Amino acid sequence: MTAAPSLRDLPEGVTAAAARRVMARCDELSRVTATPGTIERVYLSPEHARVNRLAAEWMRELGMRTWQDAAGNQVGRIGPAGADADDGPALMLGSHLDTVIDAGRFDGIVGVLIALEAVRLLRAPGGGIRLPFAVEIVAFSDEEGTRFGTALLGSSAVAGRWNEQWWDLADAEGVTLRQAYREFGLDPGRVGEAARRPDELIGYLEAHIEQGPELDRSGEALAVVSSIASARRFQLVVEGEARHAGGTPYDMRHDALLGASEAALAVERVCAAEHHIIGTVGRFEAFPGAVNVIPGEVRFSLDLRGEFDGERDRVWLALTRELDEIMGRRGLRWRSREIHRAAAVPCDPLLQDVVRAGIVDTLPQRGEEPPVIFSRAGHDGMALGAITGVGMLFLRNPEGISHHPDEAVSAADVARGIRALAAAVLHRAAEPAA
Amino acid sequence: MTAAPSLRDLPEGVTAAAARRVMARCDELSRVTATPGTIERVYLSPEHARVNRLAAEWMRELGMRTWQDAAGNQVGRIGPAGADADDGPALMLGSHLDTVIDAGRFDGIVGVLIALEAVRLLRAPGGGIRLPFAVEIVAFSDEEGTRFGTALLGSSAVAGRWNEQWWDLADAEGVTLRQAYREFGLDPGRVGEAARRPDELIGYLEAHIEQGPELDRSGEALAVVSSIASARRFQLVVEGEARHAGGTPYDMRHDALLGASEAALAVERVCAAEHHIIGTVGRFEAFPGAVNVIPGEVRFSLDLRGEFDGERDRVWLALTRELDEIMGRRGLRWRSREIHRAAAVPCDPLLQDVVRAGIVDTLPQRGEEPPVIFSRAGHDGMALGAITGVGMLFLRNPEGISHHPDEAVSAADVARGIRALAAAVLHRAAEPAA
Repeated sequence: MTAAPSLRDLPEGVTAAAARRVMARCDELSRVTATPGTIERVYLSPEHARVNRLAAEWMRELGMRTWQDAAGNQVGRIGPAGADADDGPALMLGSHLDTVIDAGRFDGIVGVLIALEAVRLLRAPGGGIRLPFAVEIVAFSDEEGTRFGTALLGSSAVAGRWNEQWWDLADAEGVTLRQAYREFGLDPGRVGEAARRPDELIGYLEAHIEQGPELDRSGEALAVVSSIASARRFQLVVEGEARHAGGTPYDMRHDALLGASEAALAVERVCAAEHHIIGTVGRFEAFPGAVNVIPGEVRFSLDLRGEFDGERDRVWLALTRELDEIMGRRGLRWRSREIHRAAAVPCDPLLQDVVRAGIVDTLPQRGEEPPVIFSRAGHDGMALGAITGVGMLFLRNPEGISHHPDEAVSAADVARGIRALAAAVLHRAAEPAA
Repeated sequence: MTAAPSLRDLPEGVTAAAARRVMARCDELSRVTATPGTIERVYLSPEHARVNRLAAEWMRELGMRTWQDAAGNQVGRIGPAGADADDGPALMLGSHLDTVIDAGRFDGIVGVLIALEAVRLLRAPGGGIRLPFAVEIVAFSDEEGTRFGTALLGSSAVAGRWNEQWWDLADAEGVTLRQAYREFGLDPGRVGEAARRPDELIGYLEAHIEQGPELDRSGEALAVVSSIASARRFQLVVEGEARHAGGTPYDMRHDALLGASEAALAVERVCAAEHHIIGTVGRFEAFPGAVNVIPGEVRFSLDLRGEFDGERDRVWLALTRELDEIMGRRGLRWRSREIHRAAAVPCDPLLQDVVRAGIVDTLPQRGEEPPVIFSRAGHDGMALGAITGVGMLFLRNPEGISHHPDEAVSAADVARGIRALAAAVLHRAAEPAA
């Protein structure tokens, strides 16, 4: 790599103030929720509209031009300082503002806010950005898939990977994605306009909390991400017979709950026997759900993640054999529907390098090297990898608690993250390819 | 027993017509539902009020005096023919009109309608009933416990066994029993007025579908019930940690769903190893219930039934030890709350005898004996046993399917049931104690 302008001389106070602003904004966004007392902000909800307006204000405050794209992603763009036109390719920074149910304050959100602070550090005094290319920040609208069960809807639209079958996905109230688009004021027929061409982009960089314990265990603040693990998600249904709890002896029962319970334990057993595979049953609903009726049907989700696609698929195959055995033995029927599949996405080697260099700039001692880890969690970069190179920076996540109200990140680590992301952008600008 | 007037000479056509009326009324009641396309009629709902009005009309059509009692039970009374006053004790007949969720058409309902037809057969030409005592029919308002999780609310009020703590029970929408009473137009402060004194009652007789397969397996239409099994119900909560599905390795997980799944399987294993004990996990809810979050909490119900109280309690003790082991191993916490407890209720020997004699009158061959079975399902008689003798008659229930839309009973068996119940009442009237 060539030498790049450094942020080493930037006073600590500047990034400390930026980190305080990020923490305060995390608090502010946490109050935009469908369920007071908890954080719940799903795709195409009134809360989604509200945080987009807030993000747009913060983008404009930095001199960025803003728009909400055809898939509800909030975008801001700032051109190179002194350039006559702002029509060249952009380096995209971003993360997402949607949440799971009963979420923490930082997952996704802190990445958007860190990107805003990085842009603030890189602005030129007279307007525009001190770089040879434009920068865009995208606050993605649906990464978690909370409302429609399918993740990465916002970034898939940007990557031009929209699946027309998604329009019929329905939320828990039976509202289809198509209807939800209209109610939000978006036109389903124009979702293609959110798609970006590869030649419009220099790359995509994202800061995110680790959502795991590795940095916390090793005492490091920041890491370079080597790849985003592959994932598959399934909706499973086990069918038996709903019968009276008292009157039906064990030899006449076809209890869907017991079959599904065995299935959940089989997921744990099969995955735990492999390396780098994690399977989770997160949704689990028994019907009819009465205290004195044997459950006749259970619907549950399965989330499978692995470092490599082949390992993940081998585990699913082993699980289908286990399920056949369990359900056959209990006189139950089962079926599954795949609702999400994502291949493992290796991070772009050049962007891994600039992220590494950005982190090195924040390390107190010369010669230290940041850890390189892979992400078991999915990220918007999985979708964007289809059209541009992806680089990611992880922030330490105390005890690895994520998707939970106790999810945390320290202001000191956020300050380092801001500095490292801005430095990484400068390193990218110093590359010949820029 | 002394000789009793027989219904053997009653033309078949009369009871066949009565059975057709019962089947038609089962259809009519099935359309009074909170969820069109399924049957769902819970305590203190608009549907409850509607079926009470229908039952009252049908009672008055037979010359019965009617009232809705202070707990929402619909009552009808008819005095002895030719008596000057109708203030003596009554033989109570009845069953319940409330249902589980997605119920069948017969559980409880057919017993109320059979009682109406038995009264029709026993009426005197000039008004009143051809018996030395009054007859009451009670359509109980809450046997299933569907709405508030606690069963036998209607019959407990009649038995004077109301528990003041019940007022704070809440339904799924958070409406307390106290509020629901007021919204239905009942006064919680007056629930004691529904209570009947032992000296007002000669006994309680109920016809009910078996809710089990024994009669169907043995090819018999009707059975004498020897006792109603004991039951306990618990609400259990397993607490772990909700964490991100991708980021949390197995060694850092405290997955409440996996602990609860093991618990459900332990219930099956422990109960199946005993005789005459059945345990069922019917409700099972995982929170937060997102596809990519490890469940941090599971709430589930346990319904335990046994022929004897001691056996039932020994099994619960064994289960608590299993739960301690499972949850301890997984780093989970668990707690339980008992929401229902009913001691086994033996049927009154005299009423068992008159039910037997009533069934014998319907058997084609002299010398045949009806089967005597115990009920694993709970019934209103469990509450009424505290104030009067209880007798029960079971009707064959094809394949033992109950608490399910496929629940069935044949018109031919209903005709026999009507005849047997009316005959049992006549046998009771012929007893010296009457």
